[in-house]
Amino acid sequence: MRSAPAFQDAYPDDVAHCYGCGRLNSMGHRLKSRWDGDETVARFTPRPYHTAIPGYVYGGLIASLIDCHGTGTAAAVGARTAGYRLGEEPVPGGEQAPRYVTASLHVDYVAPTPLGPELTIRGVIEDAGEGRGSRKVVTRITVEAEGEVTARGRVVAVRMPESMIR
Amino acid sequence: MRSAPAFQDAYPDDVAHCYGCGRLNSMGHRLKSRWDGDETVARFTPRPYHTAIPGYVYGGLIASLIDCHGTGTAAAVGARTAGYRLGEEPVPGGEQAPRYVTASLHVDYVAPTPLGPELTIRGVIEDAGEGRGSRKVVTRITVEAEGEVTARGRVVAVRMPESMIR
Repeated sequence: MRSAPAFQDAYPDDVAHCYGCGRLNSMGHRLKSRWDGDETVARFTPRPYHTAIPGYVYGGLIASLIDCHGTGTAAAVGARTAGYRLGEEPVPGGEQAPRYVTASLHVDYVAPTPLGPELTIRGVIEDAGEGRGSRKVVTRITVEAEGEVTARGRVVAVRMPESMIR
Repeated sequence: MRSAPAFQDAYPDDVAHCYGCGRLNSMGHRLKSRWDGDETVARFTPRPYHTAIPGYVYGGLIASLIDCHGTGTAAAVGARTAGYRLGEEPVPGGEQAPRYVTASLHVDYVAPTPLGPELTIRGVIEDAGEGRGSRKVVTRITVEAEGEVTARGRVVAVRMPESMIR
């Protein structure tokens, strides 16, 4: 079965260079997030050098995965509110897909994350930002290794100001 | 003037591989944190590919720098409580220097961080964990670019359990 295109595959070219998730950053992680029912999911296998204490994944990478899955989920939620599935359907009216940036990030490291296995990053929408004029989407994210949740995060993402594009 | 050795230079060899700050990780950032009066400071210049939206530093790197400066500061505070300066004085009794891991990390991205300039990461100790049996140190961290604070973080670090060393 062929996977649906990821949210990040729909980012406009001029904002698709993020080290964590940009498809145009050849040095980066290129995280790919997709819908899974009402939730979102991404998978990522850390490299051997992404270590903290030997044998475990370093916390900065876990924070990065939570951050990028949170902003990716926010973009998909923004698209859903506008009536289409990000990455799977064209943006209505030929406009550009929405892009969100992180306002705040919180991570609780609830158990050491073993280095080696593929990690599953899941997003649950806490606040879809559907209120009038809202530009904010809040997600709850978990990171799992071998079926155990090792980190829990919360990402407050806001619609990117146009002024950020240089 | 020669700089004092960094906190991370004092980490025991078997826990000095962190991608963010381990001196033995040739692929990593090798962040170096030092005392600056009662506060701590580290400096880091992101690479051109550490981008978010083009022109700005990606949030995962900022989270990583805050994380590693927080755990480094916690180790220095643990040493200070035990009566010596981490990296500058030998550990009394020939023991190993303390190592801390992150329990929780919070980052507020208060302004976009320009990509290019050196970043200054500063730590202020909120809770030195000097209470009887305490294994926790809490720090407040700022990230500055060109004299402007662009991110504020808080790191709850705990003394590494011996069981984490494999």
